[in-house]
Amino acid sequence: AQAAAAAPADLSSLPRVKHKLVVPPFAHAHEQVATGSPVINEFEMRIVEKEVQLDEDAWMQAMTFDGSIPGPLMIVHEGDYVELTLVNPAENTMPHNIDFHAATGALGGGGLTLINPGEQVVLRFKATRAGTFVYHCAPGGPMIPWHVVSGMAGCIMVLPREGLTDAQGKPVRYDRLYYIGESDHYVPKDADGTYRRYADPSEGYEDMVAVMDTLTPSHIVFNGAVGALTGDKAMKANVGERVLFIHSQPNRDSRPHLIGGHGDLVWETGKFHNPPQRDLETWFIRGGSAGAALYEFLQPGVYAYVNHNLIEAVHKGATAHVLVEGAWNNDLMEQLVAPTSVAG
Amino acid sequence: AQAAAAAPADLSSLPRVKHKLVVPPFAHAHEQVATGSPVINEFEMRIVEKEVQLDEDAWMQAMTFDGSIPGPLMIVHEGDYVELTLVNPAENTMPHNIDFHAATGALGGGGLTLINPGEQVVLRFKATRAGTFVYHCAPGGPMIPWHVVSGMAGCIMVLPREGLTDAQGKPVRYDRLYYIGESDHYVPKDADGTYRRYADPSEGYEDMVAVMDTLTPSHIVFNGAVGALTGDKAMKANVGERVLFIHSQPNRDSRPHLIGGHGDLVWETGKFHNPPQRDLETWFIRGGSAGAALYEFLQPGVYAYVNHNLIEAVHKGATAHVLVEGAWNNDLMEQLVAPTSVAG
Amino acid sequence: AQAAAAAPADLSSLPRVKHKLVVPPFAHAHEQVATGSPVINEFEMRIVEKEVQLDEDAWMQAMTFDGSIPGPLMIVHEGDYVELTLVNPAENTMPHNIDFHAATGALGGGGLTLINPGEQVVLRFKATRAGTFVYHCAPGGPMIPWHVVSGMAGCIMVLPREGLTDAQGKPVRYDRLYYIGESDHYVPKDADGTYRRYADPSEGYEDMVAVMDTLTPSHIVFNGAVGALTGDKAMKANVGERVLFIHSQPNRDSRPHLIGGHGDLVWETGKFHNPPQRDLETWFIRGGSAGAALYEFLQPGVYAYVNHNLIEAVHKGATAHVLVEGAWNNDLMEQLVAPTSVAG
Ligand SMILES: [Cu+2]
Ligand SMILES: [Cu+2]
Ligand SMILES: [Cu+2]
Ligand SMILES: [Cu+2]
Ligand SMILES: [Cu+2]
Ligand SMILES: [Cu+2]
Ligand SMILES: [Mg+2]
Ligand SMILES: [Mg+2]
Ligand SMILES: [Mg+2]
Ligand SMILES: [Mg+2]
Ligand SMILES: [Mg+2]
Ligand SMILES: [Mg+2]
Ligand SMILES: [Mg+2]
Ligand SMILES: [Mg+2]
Ligand SMILES: [Mg+2]
Repeated sequence: AQAAAAAPADLSSLPRVKHKLVVPPFAHAHEQVATGSPVINEFEMRIVEKEVQLDEDAWMQAMTFDGSIPGPLMIVHEGDYVELTLVNPAENTMPHNIDFHAATGALGGGGLTLINPGEQVVLRFKATRAGTFVYHCAPGGPMIPWHVVSGMAGCIMVLPREGLTDAQGKPVRYDRLYYIGESDHYVPKDADGTYRRYADPSEGYEDMVAVMDTLTPSHIVFNGAVGALTGDKAMKANVGERVLFIHSQPNRDSRPHLIGGHGDLVWETGKFHNPPQRDLETWFIRGGSAGAALYEFLQPGVYAYVNHNLIEAVHKGATAHVLVEGAWNNDLMEQLVAPTSVAG
Repeated sequence: AQAAAAAPADLSSLPRVKHKLVVPPFAHAHEQVATGSPVINEFEMRIVEKEVQLDEDAWMQAMTFDGSIPGPLMIVHEGDYVELTLVNPAENTMPHNIDFHAATGALGGGGLTLINPGEQVVLRFKATRAGTFVYHCAPGGPMIPWHVVSGMAGCIMVLPREGLTDAQGKPVRYDRLYYIGESDHYVPKDADGTYRRYADPSEGYEDMVAVMDTLTPSHIVFNGAVGALTGDKAMKANVGERVLFIHSQPNRDSRPHLIGGHGDLVWETGKFHNPPQRDLETWFIRGGSAGAALYEFLQPGVYAYVNHNLIEAVHKGATAHVLVEGAWNNDLMEQLVAPTSVAG
Repeated sequence: AQAAAAAPADLSSLPRVKHKLVVPPFAHAHEQVATGSPVINEFEMRIVEKEVQLDEDAWMQAMTFDGSIPGPLMIVHEGDYVELTLVNPAENTMPHNIDFHAATGALGGGGLTLINPGEQVVLRFKATRAGTFVYHCAPGGPMIPWHVVSGMAGCIMVLPREGLTDAQGKPVRYDRLYYIGESDHYVPKDADGTYRRYADPSEGYEDMVAVMDTLTPSHIVFNGAVGALTGDKAMKANVGERVLFIHSQPNRDSRPHLIGGHGDLVWETGKFHNPPQRDLETWFIRGGSAGAALYEFLQPGVYAYVNHNLIEAVHKGATAHVLVEGAWNNDLMEQLVAPTSVAG
């Protein structure tokens, strides 16, 4: 009502940029430093309900933004506008919406975007704060945690117009960007200990709520499944490249760590006008937020990127790999004596 | 013994200010900038043991400071003294004390304030550090977690004499202040799944300990009950007002988030001589601490203030509301196309 | 392969310093400010598998660095080299390695140090980042969390060459240093509720994994056992001394608090080139990291140093004591009226 009462904003003079979203850990093409004045960034996302395989032995009736868990990463600049067309196709079974932590008012847009299957809506908001921010479905009451742990969350990065800067205000650029969306899931088990499958989301609702109330996930994964970012699907980089890792967790705390690497510059809370921390071994993602860490790789090899609750990393699934090529530096590390029989 | 050996401090020349504590989320009248030199602030708190209703279907034999969960917010300035008369009325069943995280020595005062039912004690300490600090009952050993999760915790805010300042040292003022005390509770269930009630705290002790040992609360609430700060009891504000939210959690970590809003300035660890972070979507309250977040409301409407582990917010109870009046700003957010049939 | 391809670094001109590791909470002799140019620090650690007693009623088939949980604290300066001889004696039953969060490449050295019982290896790495960093065993896959929660973790402190500095860059020195290694353990129980004992680590593996998957530890302890740092084994200090507390947790988050004291300067993430926070009541150790807090004791008495999830402190074991001698200061705190009958 209050929203309707105000005169529409006239932004007809602003340039428009249409983006095509891509599947994480990748991001759509973007500039790190804005070259002009603010624009209206147009995005379209379709909500997809579908069964996904979380692990060899576990499936979930998922709800997703654009078909992936996490939803796609959106990138704009501070002062830009975001114009999203959100589509809930008729084959879906449930109302959905979108709450942007980057937006101001109307429950982050959730109050203006609730759409039934067969409906679409267009929301515009101004990106007034620089940083990485979670977005997620929030259809009200118990639907909120359920839709989120069923997969409906992603991230938007609002870059400062001048690009990233370090704690001294010096410009910082990245050579690659990867978006890691961590999510916690609560798959019910049969009495014999096998994971249950369901015909659609609603059929599994009550069982899932019972697991959720234990606050103990059955699965904690990166990008939607155990192994989604390992082996053939590992992230890639070269020695000397600076990689920006964006890490979102819409519900539960996490503590990312790059085994054998560091966070050179870490915006733990994700907001770029705060000075980043340096040299970190492990950083902390508050449940319901997204953070960013920049690292220049100095050695080749396979790196594991994990949630450093190692039970969550290994038993629950929160492990990714980065495959790095280049020359080894024996000054930084050297195996002086290979394994040999104990002396004496 | 050591305490007794020292000569009493002579503070007879200092002015005295008597405060009347009020029930959270409200705070007693106070100045943001101290107008004179340090004073002795006099407070009185009565410990109240009573059954409280946590939810429609759940009760707890609570122990409280002054009858509320959380206990009342106390506000003083850095360099002031706090002089507390703590009363344990004869109708109570248990010894209690108070440990101020803001105080120095004697287990935060816990070592000097243990009183049996029918006793009172007077403690004075100097507020030497600026920030928001938890206080709680800590009667020793297993009594400590039990009294805390039964409700005995609150907060004191020690303001810098010059008031709050931002990361650049610029003065910051608030128009309203709300104190949200989050607490985790462990209500045992009967074999049939209904919550148990007990005649007094001691009767429920062993059952509650068994739930506590799972580290999984049955309830996580703001201000003592599911719904204590929603609906008719929502916090209020106007567009353009800057609201300081103080959030304490004496035992378990939390991650506050204001749906549709932000933390403009956030002292996550609550200590005011550290530079606040800006633009936050979600911040983190370490279990056993209190933090502060300032937000200027920019849009009207109902905001939910939640612990953004959404299961904890919705299933366990950690949700509050802020009702904000004013004019909508379509530049910040606009519903460009209302829900309509999917195109094509 | 890549490591082997590079020419060995020639460090033959550097001085060598041999350190003898000591059992935590103590640390080997060291300089706070480096007096010369970088050195090679030589350390030797033996891996010891043995049964340890976690509590009166609980035992664990532990795996340890040098026989203690946590492993010993190593101290070097930024720009120094660390040269470690790691020995896996023939009487052990399992392969082990070491992953230094302070090191760069090869999974923190884990990829170059995997040794079978009866083998030893020598690794050298350069300490390029200042701070406190976890090291732990990481033999791959499910062995990683299992070896860590069985005890195989410790800490290295890399001091800036110029020593510690505060947020304004002013030099900071400590009079004592204590290293508190918090660890979470998952001891299985029999049907009758008594803790199980096993003949060797492997016998207990499957049972322990079942407990680990609940994400709910049976024990959370400081320095390897309930009571390892209390009573006769309390840490000691004097009024006026500045004590540096180093706190590591290789797996699970923690929130240290000193009852009756504070963190004067806290490097929560442990990395010394970031400005420390001041005045903290409670700070946060991200699982898989080590942090540091400096406190000058101002009052005598017994202080409890706890993980301020009070259930974890008291029921699970995460409590230590500091015994402080000196004169009481009634200006900071005074018991004005001892417990007396309620007035009126
Ligand atoms: Cu949804
Ligand atoms: Cu949210
Ligand atoms: Cu009490
Ligand atoms: Cu406390
Ligand atoms: Cu090992
Ligand atoms: Cu690690
Ligand atoms: Mg599995
Ligand atoms: Mg349909
Ligand atoms: Mg900036
Ligand atoms: Mg309920
Ligand atoms: Mg009585
Ligand atoms: Mg100041
Ligand atoms: Mg025990
Ligand atoms: Mg052997
Ligand atoms: Mg420095």
